[in-house]
Amino acid sequence: MATKTLAQWAVNLTDIPPNVRNAALRSLYNYIGCTIGGSNHPTVKKAHAALSPLFGRHTSCLLGSASKADAQHAALLNGIASHVHDYDDTHLATIIHPTAPVASALLAYAELQGTPVRGEDLLTALVAGIEASCKLGLGVWPEHYDIGWHITGTTGVIGAAVSVGKLMRLSESQMTHAIGIAAVNVIGLREMFGSDTKSFHPGQAAASGIVAALLARQGYTSSERALEAKRGWGNVVAGGGAGAAGLDLFVASLGKSWEVEVNSFKPFPCGIVCHPAIDAAIQCHEELRQRGVDPAEIEGVALRVHPLVVELTSKKFPRDGLEAKFSVYHGCAVGLLYGKAGPAQYEDDVVADKRVTSLRDMVSIAADASVNADEAHLTLTHRLGMLERHIPHAVGSAEVPMNDAQLERKFLDQVSPVLGASLSKQASDAAWALGDAEDVLPTMRHFCRRYIVPEIDLCT
Amino acid sequence: MATKTLAQWAVNLTDIPPNVRNAALRSLYNYIGCTIGGSNHPTVKKAHAALSPLFGRHTSCLLGSASKADAQHAALLNGIASHVHDYDDTHLATIIHPTAPVASALLAYAELQGTPVRGEDLLTALVAGIEASCKLGLGVWPEHYDIGWHITGTTGVIGAAVSVGKLMRLSESQMTHAIGIAAVNVIGLREMFGSDTKSFHPGQAAASGIVAALLARQGYTSSERALEAKRGWGNVVAGGGAGAAGLDLFVASLGKSWEVEVNSFKPFPCGIVCHPAIDAAIQCHEELRQRGVDPAEIEGVALRVHPLVVELTSKKFPRDGLEAKFSVYHGCAVGLLYGKAGPAQYEDDVVADKRVTSLRDMVSIAADASVNADEAHLTLTHRLGMLERHIPHAVGSAEVPMNDAQLERKFLDQVSPVLGASLSKQASDAAWALGDAEDVLPTMRHFCRRYIVPEIDLCT
Repeated sequence: MATKTLAQWAVNLTDIPPNVRNAALRSLYNYIGCTIGGSNHPTVKKAHAALSPLFGRHTSCLLGSASKADAQHAALLNGIASHVHDYDDTHLATIIHPTAPVASALLAYAELQGTPVRGEDLLTALVAGIEASCKLGLGVWPEHYDIGWHITGTTGVIGAAVSVGKLMRLSESQMTHAIGIAAVNVIGLREMFGSDTKSFHPGQAAASGIVAALLARQGYTSSERALEAKRGWGNVVAGGGAGAAGLDLFVASLGKSWEVEVNSFKPFPCGIVCHPAIDAAIQCHEELRQRGVDPAEIEGVALRVHPLVVELTSKKFPRDGLEAKFSVYHGCAVGLLYGKAGPAQYEDDVVADKRVTSLRDMVSIAADASVNADEAHLTLTHRLGMLERHIPHAVGSAEVPMNDAQLERKFLDQVSPVLGASLSKQASDAAWALGDAEDVLPTMRHFCRRYIVPEIDLCT
Repeated sequence: MATKTLAQWAVNLTDIPPNVRNAALRSLYNYIGCTIGGSNHPTVKKAHAALSPLFGRHTSCLLGSASKADAQHAALLNGIASHVHDYDDTHLATIIHPTAPVASALLAYAELQGTPVRGEDLLTALVAGIEASCKLGLGVWPEHYDIGWHITGTTGVIGAAVSVGKLMRLSESQMTHAIGIAAVNVIGLREMFGSDTKSFHPGQAAASGIVAALLARQGYTSSERALEAKRGWGNVVAGGGAGAAGLDLFVASLGKSWEVEVNSFKPFPCGIVCHPAIDAAIQCHEELRQRGVDPAEIEGVALRVHPLVVELTSKKFPRDGLEAKFSVYHGCAVGLLYGKAGPAQYEDDVVADKRVTSLRDMVSIAADASVNADEAHLTLTHRLGMLERHIPHAVGSAEVPMNDAQLERKFLDQVSPVLGASLSKQASDAAWALGDAEDVLPTMRHFCRRYIVPEIDLCT
């Protein structure tokens, strides 16, 4: 029943509760910042150069860029950009990054469709897709992930199809087939982590989700039991076991509990285990400022942290920004020095900066198995005395979600290097207002590097 | 080692043995016939209509059609057309239909590239892709298929990438990454058999293979152990077991044994279990003709066949062409009446034809467990006496492969309704000559519904 249940729920979804709507808007806002922020990354540039010979009508924005592409390739490239810094959102129960594939497909398709799209309808379609991905992910968790699938792409392609299908107003039967067509794609292996192909997963999922919805709208058929059949998606991607039982359970909870409400956002573009220490450092920066102590007057920093921090992020002398992502020393030093640890603090020149390195050398860490994974203790000595800070739950954890102001700071930190400070604020305001727009399409230009004059289309 | 071994072998492949070259040409020839023959099918038309808003520069032929598309969508649509009648080739040890994804990608990409492509190079690239698909298929067989994957698409996307990468002359490192990027796609569930999505599998595999090769050429990275790593393709698609051991074994046999040499071709567009009975009927038609007996003078037909024939194809009164594919009665009747059982003999009006139905009513079948699956006994009574025919191995089986004349008859039977008789013969001659062409690209126009005047491209 999972396939029909999901299709029926998605087709009939209206009037989402205010909390859910707000969570969806925050997810979309965070996605737009991450995508613009990732748009200059070499991985995106390579993909753009490689695939531009295939581009069709330039209907859809490449966020953060001055150019457009057809919807399928825009979805692919935006999907790559949104995930390339490993800085996007996380549905913690499944480690799915749900917005990347869904929003990449949805925004690119909305521009292809071309007719006005109300902000409410955009958010409703986004919710449909995110709920689809996360419920299916819960249904096949943890076998699916343990086998080696990158769950963001594998569930994302179905979520993307549901989301686009919702915006298209597919019938229940069409939506059922869209789910089935999407389900045969199954994109992403964990083996690719650390390579360009990791971020290809949400991109390809987004692109294939659009294809599935377009085919289904035209009457292209799949299976009405695509998810739950013996040789359907659930059992097959869970390794031939009995994934379908879990599917039914979680699909039945659609609309009763909302996964987008527990979607979380990364405050820092680095390994999540060092976030509590960075959080502590940033709070100390503020306190030192209030007491009139310069970070140069710090004389020692001692961290007591969960053992995984030592295991995964103890690069004492990172040589560049990429290595710094795995250095709690670096994260702590920039937190103390700048009061933030955004993308700018992971640039190569900051990593080599004298003030950073001398502070970094002062940090010592101790593993303590009694400290939780989202917890940290920091003790700091300085010219005037001592400072202690205990972080029971790091910012960005389920207990201490990032608030809107923090999300906005993250957005501006990512977007400013691409669009410049002034246009970044405009982009932020435009992104926050998306949910209330009578038509979201004119807003899209705020997410690009310069205003795009609508092209005269010579290709149709 | 499987990934590097495959990449190295493919990059260095030259001077394929004459038997292998000939087998590749026959596979390509059969593919072209099937693709043109499938091009009018409603499944292809739906996909074309659905996806045309995404089309880019019209570089690449849609075989059997009067129009073109960008290479990615041409590969997708040709891949669907080639497989939609379930009439293409079969690598019997894995049930892979190897040419559909590989040739669909290769031909569409060759036209995108636009520079002259020697026939020899086309065949070498085709062999590289087919061997890649089939060796990987053998490596994960049978667990992979048993779990529920449609092995044609899942191995085909990698074969397609290898084939296109070979034509591009990728370096060994680029080829390694192309294999990895392709491997994350994994397209196709057996649950989709009986729906439009079955033939989407080889199409999407072809399209995604082109994308993988293009990305790799641009330096896009994946994993150098994409196939054999713990969380790489082999283990993951075999359900988290130990698929990689089998992979290494079969990949090591690349160039030692050639899978394309044992590729087989379906002589009749219907369930393979009724092929021996049809073969017998066609032979009887010829003998009756020589004796001057009209098929209307047949008085009774008794078949003794493998029990699966009764189980799977005993529709006594098929109502249309689709049902007739599962009727050994119909296959036998048209074989006796027309001396052939091609697509034309499975048209609805033939299925309803009085002469066919009266002959069909005369056929009786008996299951006999001592008869092999590719064997049949036919006993026929007619005005002048009796006729017996024993088929130990049906045409198209490993023991009795279709010869070139039979392949050509199959080609013309499929292509004539699309291109007309005269252009079909031209297309057939052009297809046979592909291997010797100095440049295959000008030949492509012979596979289209009318000559296409090269378009002035307004979209670049």
